[in-house]
Amino acid sequence: MNPVSVSTQNFRAIDVIRKKRDGAELSRYEIESLVNAYTRDDIPDYQVAAWLMAVVLRGMTRDETAALTDAMLRSGEVLDLSSLPSKKVDKHSTGGVGDKTSLVLAPLVAAAGLTVPMISGRGLGHTGGTLDKLEAIPGFNVNLSVAQFRRVLETCGCAMIGQTAEIAPADRKLYALRDVTGTVESPYLICASIMSKKLAEGIDALVLDVKTGSGAFMKNEKDAVFLAELMVETGERMGKEVVALITDMDQPLGKMIGNALEVMEVIDVLRGKGPEDLRQLCLELAGWMLYLGGDSSSVNSGKQRSEQLIESGKALEKFRQMVELQGGDVSSIDDPKKLPQARHTTMVPSPRNGYITSLQCEQIGTACVILGGGRERKEDSVDPAVGIVLHKKVGESVAGGEPLATIQYNSEDRAARAKELIQASYQISNSPSETPAKKRPLIHRTIARTITISGDKN
Amino acid sequence: MNPVSVSTQNFRAIDVIRKKRDGAELSRYEIESLVNAYTRDDIPDYQVAAWLMAVVLRGMTRDETAALTDAMLRSGEVLDLSSLPSKKVDKHSTGGVGDKTSLVLAPLVAAAGLTVPMISGRGLGHTGGTLDKLEAIPGFNVNLSVAQFRRVLETCGCAMIGQTAEIAPADRKLYALRDVTGTVESPYLICASIMSKKLAEGIDALVLDVKTGSGAFMKNEKDAVFLAELMVETGERMGKEVVALITDMDQPLGKMIGNALEVMEVIDVLRGKGPEDLRQLCLELAGWMLYLGGDSSSVNSGKQRSEQLIESGKALEKFRQMVELQGGDVSSIDDPKKLPQARHTTMVPSPRNGYITSLQCEQIGTACVILGGGRERKEDSVDPAVGIVLHKKVGESVAGGEPLATIQYNSEDRAARAKELIQASYQISNSPSETPAKKRPLIHRTIARTITISGDKN
Repeated sequence: MNPVSVSTQNFRAIDVIRKKRDGAELSRYEIESLVNAYTRDDIPDYQVAAWLMAVVLRGMTRDETAALTDAMLRSGEVLDLSSLPSKKVDKHSTGGVGDKTSLVLAPLVAAAGLTVPMISGRGLGHTGGTLDKLEAIPGFNVNLSVAQFRRVLETCGCAMIGQTAEIAPADRKLYALRDVTGTVESPYLICASIMSKKLAEGIDALVLDVKTGSGAFMKNEKDAVFLAELMVETGERMGKEVVALITDMDQPLGKMIGNALEVMEVIDVLRGKGPEDLRQLCLELAGWMLYLGGDSSSVNSGKQRSEQLIESGKALEKFRQMVELQGGDVSSIDDPKKLPQARHTTMVPSPRNGYITSLQCEQIGTACVILGGGRERKEDSVDPAVGIVLHKKVGESVAGGEPLATIQYNSEDRAARAKELIQASYQISNSPSETPAKKRPLIHRTIARTITISGDKN
Repeated sequence: MNPVSVSTQNFRAIDVIRKKRDGAELSRYEIESLVNAYTRDDIPDYQVAAWLMAVVLRGMTRDETAALTDAMLRSGEVLDLSSLPSKKVDKHSTGGVGDKTSLVLAPLVAAAGLTVPMISGRGLGHTGGTLDKLEAIPGFNVNLSVAQFRRVLETCGCAMIGQTAEIAPADRKLYALRDVTGTVESPYLICASIMSKKLAEGIDALVLDVKTGSGAFMKNEKDAVFLAELMVETGERMGKEVVALITDMDQPLGKMIGNALEVMEVIDVLRGKGPEDLRQLCLELAGWMLYLGGDSSSVNSGKQRSEQLIESGKALEKFRQMVELQGGDVSSIDDPKKLPQARHTTMVPSPRNGYITSLQCEQIGTACVILGGGRERKEDSVDPAVGIVLHKKVGESVAGGEPLATIQYNSEDRAARAKELIQASYQISNSPSETPAKKRPLIHRTIARTITISGDKN
């Protein structure tokens, strides 16, 4: 499809900036004109920067948010996957530490017969990125053309690539500008950015995993719920089935942090093993994907079906097939020791006996970045081999000198800095009574049709 | 003096943008670093645009406003007029329609022996500009170098020029960006822009004329008072004597609007004639300038002295001297018919008998712009000859068919559009009882030492 062109003869950027500055609601035409003019380089960065700051501080109505999402979506190509008979579903996470669910979900849901056209991002700051994890598999190519993407989808039902130049070019320009003008932190702009890219995949249904806690972008649950409701409503206005799960990111998900390590943990889960929190979250998200995609009659039956697809080895076989189709070395899936390995390991010992009361999640993510496993700036390269294996998580007891974590590293200097940060991340109390009686739930809430379904689905 | 350079090794524009976005107070160092980096082109327009919008919506503390003013002032040259023995005083108006007081005040106050180093601006939008008025005098050169400016000041005590490249370059860059990013309308930014330029003149005292009403930038008095207090406090923090008068701009000042016409009215006032409102405002402002400049022991004695300087012809003689020193044709001062004359005139008749209850002042200014006497955009050129002579002002009676105003024009088409606008600007009631019993005062308030001195000095 072609980008939709809009006549802008009556449009002046300065009027739209002033209107938003003064707290008035912008029309769909005004928002569309601004986005299209910016995408075509017809208005300068500085006008859009002023407008973005006005949006951050004045907010947007639901109509404005939907109009912005729609304009960004239509700034580029919207994939037409109607030639594929099955329903297209996807999942998007707002990002966290150790969150490797996408790599489990794409093959798992495809194994059920649905299509998962997953377009993902790279890690930035303390959070990891799906593309970086995939590239830890030797040979795996995330830069497929749209035609290649379509061929992989046709053959195996799932494919995982990076954003292409054709998809939502307005988002690419706007995001780069937001990054340098202090205008990232707006739920309206985040919603439009995420939803425009996801809806450009030509999907029927979308499961959103909105993280909350010390390792999440939204530290408190209220902000996470606000963003989740905004995205669910925006998706539904555009005729899609959308649900959002508010899930915990107050400690890393699973035990592995680092690109190759996380692929290993993904393979564990697809083999029916792996840490319980990661496995449970994958099943919950897959259950929703199968339910919204019409494969299962309920979320619970979707979860059961997902468990069976793992038990039977079909999910792992689908993963193997996708890796092969995207040029990856499948022998590294069969024998994860063939994944990139760091040259050295070192243990982070507990300073004393006690119980883990909390684990500062963002610091653990930062420790992985320090090791070289993530990016401080977009242009940084990533070392796939390094990372952290957590041996203790919240609620567990530990003896003095016992390992809290193991660091896999390639630089002594970086390892020393990471070690310090990891040790400081663990809060250890003297008695189990100081440990919160009930651990934070893995799934805080589920939001569908803009109504909160339950306080805790766990 | 040289621009002050500040080490910016710990300064990141993005941090300053985020801090202001989140409503925190910026330090003097942060503001200075931002202004200096922008003046040196070390940070891009889009970051400053986002910061400006955050300032518009979050505001600034008095400390921040003073720091911004100071940084902008020190971005360029501060004139050192200490070789001139007399006190240096100036007046600044926030702009209006028919406001030609600067042309009266500079020679009047210089005639008393004080120095008036006046750096002025051009008209934009519905308001006129002092430089455009001066250029209606054939040959008058407003583009003097700093050295030439100083020589004229030494010879006659007053000089009137445009902003030079050396004075407050940060303001020039910031103002151009504010103009296109919807960030003009902030009292903090307006204060810093005005005060940085005025204080760069090396003055001891400043009288501010803050306009309020339908023809003013600040339509309501509350906003005008807020800006006035901000400017007075900022000036005093920098060791200057500053007073602000809140004066009426609900109808044009005087009877003449248009560049050559306004010069004629200035000559009238300097000859002891002219319309009473203009004459009174000039005397009030001159009284304050003489009082703050130490020439007179009170504002009232300053007013009396000003009247004498007009009566004796000394003020007019000073004006003649300044015009001559700046290359202007003095014969046009002696015989104002030699000033540029429009080719045609047309009368705007009253549609009926009645009393003028109000006069939409901004529309009168816009009518003058339509005639070619002002600018819609900075790059427009100005026709000095065209303009409007008002025969009726608020409170006066008028007969049907009697002239409300006369238009001096050079284009039939423009005259027709201006005529319609002028007619629509006059609100005419049937009986004098519908006319406000008391006309709006010419001077609403006087603000000095950040304390309101009186409700009405008139």
